[in-house]
Formats: sequence, structure tokens, C-alpha cells
Amino acid sequence: MKKSIALGVLAFSLATAASAQVKPEDQIKFRQAGYSFMSWNMGKIKANLEGEYNAKQVEAAANAIAAIAGSGMGALYGPGTDKAIGERKTRVKPEFFKEMDNVGKLAVNFNAAAANLAKVAASGDKAAVQKAFGDTGETCKACHDKYRAD
Amino acid sequence: MKKSIALGVLAFSLATAASAQVKPEDQIKFRQAGYSFMSWNMGKIKANLEGEYNAKQVEAAANAIAAIAGSGMGALYGPGTDKAIGERKTRVKPEFFKEMDNVGKLAVNFNAAAANLAKVAASGDKAAVQKAFGDTGETCKACHDKYRAD
Repeated sequence: MKKSIALGVLAFSLATAASAQVKPEDQIKFRQAGYSFMSWNMGKIKANLEGEYNAKQVEAAANAIAAIAGSGMGALYGPGTDKAIGERKTRVKPEFFKEMDNVGKLAVNFNAAAANLAKVAASGDKAAVQKAFGDTGETCKACHDKYRAD
Repeated sequence: MKKSIALGVLAFSLATAASAQVKPEDQIKFRQAGYSFMSWNMGKIKANLEGEYNAKQVEAAANAIAAIAGSGMGALYGPGTDKAIGERKTRVKPEFFKEMDNVGKLAVNFNAAAANLAKVAASGDKAAVQKAFGDTGETCKACHDKYRAD
């Protein structure tokens, strides 16, 4: 447990010189883009589970979610990104920046669930995808409930 | 050649019942999110190539680009998405929707280049990544030059 939290904090605070060059307003824009694109793909998987199941589409959607989740989005929560910058609004709550141990834990859970969803989706097993999809949604919700304003 | 064009059109017009449910304004939003998130990751790879090279960060960035590219974004160019919808603007040119054979070809090229970039990034070979990154950028530019307004 301690190890996974430490890894999470590491993963979530991974801001190298490279990504640190991104302006705060662009950090907000890019993180919102990532969540938006993941939501489209979650929606596709949901529609496939509720309707005609296209294993290839589900696999591609799950791969996108897992790769976005694993791309080091923690670097997009740098200094100055805790509130709106001009037109660029954000729903992140102030607590997010004060509870990085917990945020790191949630990030690890989310990454693991998304990676598992991609793995299961590649198998084409609809029932297993249903389970992994629900698990992933729970990890999204865990962070939204605590750190995202309505 | 003919086969790859046909595959491209197929990939690019892949709008199943599932994804067809997305409202036109949301299709524009999601496709912009995808391109935006890819641009962040292209920027990270560029910064790594020009500065300190972090192979893990490059691999994760390349995976995100490849998975987004392969997620069936053609479904986000449905009817009614050829011009702005309310506040949701788009830079896509009308020609895009009239030249789907060529768009399909460009999409196939882009997907192949992004998949190759991810493959090469996993090897950790910086020189090979430099080449694959340039090739991927060319396939982005090929579409932007022809079908994206300034």
C-alpha cells in the first residue's frame, strides 16, 4: 500500500523540465482535453455494452483511455492551475492540491483500472469488459466526488 | 495502395450505432480534445528530443498519440459537424467532407506513423524516435495544410 501511494505521488507529480514549460492555462486546457477524450471513449464502451458489441471498437476505446491515463497528466496540475485563468475555467477543488498523497492513491487506482480495462478489452470477453468498465468508472468517480466541483 | 485507401475510408467512416449517438457539437468538442491532447504529447516528445531524454515519458506520450489516433476519430466528423455550432467553432474546411478518399488516405498514413512512433519509442532509441517523430509530424501537417483553416 505504501509503495503504491509513493508510486502514485511520483506518477502524479512527474513534471520534468519538458512538461514544466507548458503555460498554466494550457495545462488546464490539456488536462480537460484528456478527460474529455476519455469520456467519449467511456461513452462508446458503455454504448457497446448496452447495444451491439463491437470488440474492435471497445478495444480501441479502452486503449485510448489507458494510454491517456498513463501519459503523466499529473504534470498538468502545476502551480497556478488551481483556479480559472481568464476564459479557461476549471472545476478542480482547492483540496486537490493539499491532499497529494490521496490524489496519488486515486491516480494509481485509476491507472490500474484503465490498464486492466484495456487488457480485458483485447480479450473480447464482453462480461469481463462489463466488470472492468464498472471498476474503471468507480475510480473516475472516486476523484470526481472528492475533488471536482459540480 | 487501393487497399490502404479503402481501409482508410473504412476506418474514417466507422460510425457505428454507438458513436452515432454523439451530438454534432460534442463530436466537434471530442475531436478537438483528441487533437489537443495529442499536441501536448507531441510537444513533450519534442522537448525530450531537444533536451534531457526521458525514455519512459516519451514512450507514454507516444502511446497516447497512437491510441488516440487509432480510436476511430472518423466518427467525430458526422453530419452537421462541418461548421461552427453555437459557441463551438471548428477550423475544418468544407473540402474535407468532399474528399473522403484522400482524407482516408491521410488518416491511414497518420495512424501508421503514430503506431510506428509508439513502437520505436518503446525501444528507447532516441535517434529512431527523432525520425519517427518527424514522420508523424509530416502526416499531421499533410492534413492540416489541406483541410484546416488558419
